[in-house]
Amino acid sequence: MLNFTFSNSTKIIFGKDVEMQVGAETALWGKKVLLHYGGGHIVRSGLKKRVVASLQEAGVEFVELGGVQPNPRLSLVQEGIALARKEQVDFILAVGGGSVIDSAKAIAIGVPYDGDVWDFYAGKTRAKESLPVGVVLTIPAAGSESSTSSVITKEEGWLKRGYGEVIMRPKFAFMNPELTYSLPPYQTACGVADMMAHVMERYFTNEKEVGFTDQLCEATLRSIIQEAPVAIAEPENYGARANIMWAGTIAHNDLLSTGRLGDWASHNIEHELSALYDIAHGAGLAIVFPAWMKYVYRHDIPRFVQFSVEVFGVEQDYHNPERTILEGIRRLEDFFRRIGLPTTLQEADIPADRLEEMAAKSTANDTQTLGTFVPLNQADVLEIYKLCQGN
Amino acid sequence: MLNFTFSNSTKIIFGKDVEMQVGAETALWGKKVLLHYGGGHIVRSGLKKRVVASLQEAGVEFVELGGVQPNPRLSLVQEGIALARKEQVDFILAVGGGSVIDSAKAIAIGVPYDGDVWDFYAGKTRAKESLPVGVVLTIPAAGSESSTSSVITKEEGWLKRGYGEVIMRPKFAFMNPELTYSLPPYQTACGVADMMAHVMERYFTNEKEVGFTDQLCEATLRSIIQEAPVAIAEPENYGARANIMWAGTIAHNDLLSTGRLGDWASHNIEHELSALYDIAHGAGLAIVFPAWMKYVYRHDIPRFVQFSVEVFGVEQDYHNPERTILEGIRRLEDFFRRIGLPTTLQEADIPADRLEEMAAKSTANDTQTLGTFVPLNQADVLEIYKLCQGN
Repeated sequence: MLNFTFSNSTKIIFGKDVEMQVGAETALWGKKVLLHYGGGHIVRSGLKKRVVASLQEAGVEFVELGGVQPNPRLSLVQEGIALARKEQVDFILAVGGGSVIDSAKAIAIGVPYDGDVWDFYAGKTRAKESLPVGVVLTIPAAGSESSTSSVITKEEGWLKRGYGEVIMRPKFAFMNPELTYSLPPYQTACGVADMMAHVMERYFTNEKEVGFTDQLCEATLRSIIQEAPVAIAEPENYGARANIMWAGTIAHNDLLSTGRLGDWASHNIEHELSALYDIAHGAGLAIVFPAWMKYVYRHDIPRFVQFSVEVFGVEQDYHNPERTILEGIRRLEDFFRRIGLPTTLQEADIPADRLEEMAAKSTANDTQTLGTFVPLNQADVLEIYKLCQGN
Repeated sequence: MLNFTFSNSTKIIFGKDVEMQVGAETALWGKKVLLHYGGGHIVRSGLKKRVVASLQEAGVEFVELGGVQPNPRLSLVQEGIALARKEQVDFILAVGGGSVIDSAKAIAIGVPYDGDVWDFYAGKTRAKESLPVGVVLTIPAAGSESSTSSVITKEEGWLKRGYGEVIMRPKFAFMNPELTYSLPPYQTACGVADMMAHVMERYFTNEKEVGFTDQLCEATLRSIIQEAPVAIAEPENYGARANIMWAGTIAHNDLLSTGRLGDWASHNIEHELSALYDIAHGAGLAIVFPAWMKYVYRHDIPRFVQFSVEVFGVEQDYHNPERTILEGIRRLEDFFRRIGLPTTLQEADIPADRLEEMAAKSTANDTQTLGTFVPLNQADVLEIYKLCQGN
């Protein structure tokens, strides 16, 4: 087990109708808020009206900036920074899913910084200050509501890059599972794949003596796998929605990576897909993760056997561990298909003509490797993209 | 699932040699520290010397107060409050296990309060302020290193009472599993029973739709059950010590009670034992918890079947759930015995002549019930004490 530091200070306010308290909580942090959101869904559902009423009741002023898209764009972040400065905003309130929260975090570190906010994402410098950020979560998926990280896409060159600092962790997150009742099945499924990937990136580690966090990872995966089909079949099943929503936060609040080094190659491999094709991140992960597994499992047979047995209840073939492993990967693919996700590029209507370009981009022309479990070079990544084509 | 608010801001610094950084971390919070500890163990082990060196290196002044006993006493807390005021201490650093930390928390809320600190524990008033508290943990057990609670014993009448507020949560906790190598097997086992009880108190709930936290509870229990015999057989097994230590924190940092109402009757029933007989809290719990289970399991047969199957791997008898449950309880008792704990009053050399007195005291002469899973009156508690005698 590695030495680690862990603390997660985000205050989670979870349950029915909790968003009615957002004004009072916001007032503890700011006087003038940038209300940041995506499309018209929060208007149509009445959520925006409730949030605005709560802010007004608490005497909090606000300006608003909507229009965040999936795979949130740098240009809107820059617009938000300019607006926040002009309006002397002291708090960013994100109402939406991971894209909105990531965009809000980027604005929050951009406002007090003299240079271009992309500098942080390009690895040129580190953010030393951030405006405080709060969240009303509507899509359980990214875990951004209590994470330190943000992923932004720069339109010029379609570069999708992540950045994180402890100062970027939201101060609070309101999480009402009822707000997720209206999520379409496909979006629910994409969220599920995203949170499962967050756990699996942490699960596949070379670190030994991490039995406790192994167990927590397996428990989280099993719970998501159990609840997801229920939530899709019965969109207004509170228990299923609530368990998924809370699991999505725990999947990415750093508890599950304590004492272990995560891999994160699959996330990087997927980022190239969703940067080029604008496929939902979760759907991309449902394609990439099983392919990654097929490519790397020989590196640690016992860990993949453990995954198959503990997560998917595969009857262990003690004399042929590879069979056990492949059955586990097959069940992962089956699960993704069952909840309506693609597991091959073809199923996602992604052509195979730019695989080499993506492999080159993700490894910066073979000058970087991806992942820690098995470091992957450009040729490895290309093989994984090929495996994404299925059989 | 119940609505809930969750946040745990304690910064955990975990791993080998971490205590060397305690001075620098303390300096972020205070200039003059009360160094609070128990007996001579931290002197003999050299830990005190290392902590003092780290404080001095960081330019932090300190005064010290040792002598905390298991089941920490009110009189020492009062001494600590007087000392802290006289020396104008602005931070309390607890070096030890749960008793030392609980004592430090009591001093921390006592210093800014005009009245008697016992007022909080007696339920007369609530603490509005606390000095900040930091921890160097030497005994994984109580979970006090990141919890909001403190349990103190008042010598007059031997009253043992708990009290908790969010402001009492430690600012940081240094956790080096190597510091636990020197724990004797019995003390290791008592810690293990204590942390398991923290999980089980939360596990046995009447709340429905809590599948995710059920899974996390079961994972934590299984991990502790797996690692404990290893740590006892091989005291310097880093992995076993580290997994137990981290599980002990998670068992009591409130994550496992999110969305559910815990029971806590067994803790209260045990408190009377350790107040009267000065038995270790964990040993008392190893006696009380199986007895409580035998008394209440009919209240929720499916939950106890789930416990037996998921935590102890009992082969389920689908046609006789009671058999499955009793086998689970038997395995819990077997486990406690295997790690060297008593599971009956006789084994702990506790006579049976004051059971009625304890039942009366714990329920304030039948004016209060204990627990929420099955509320227990004085007669119920007496029956459980009788079951503690074994067969």
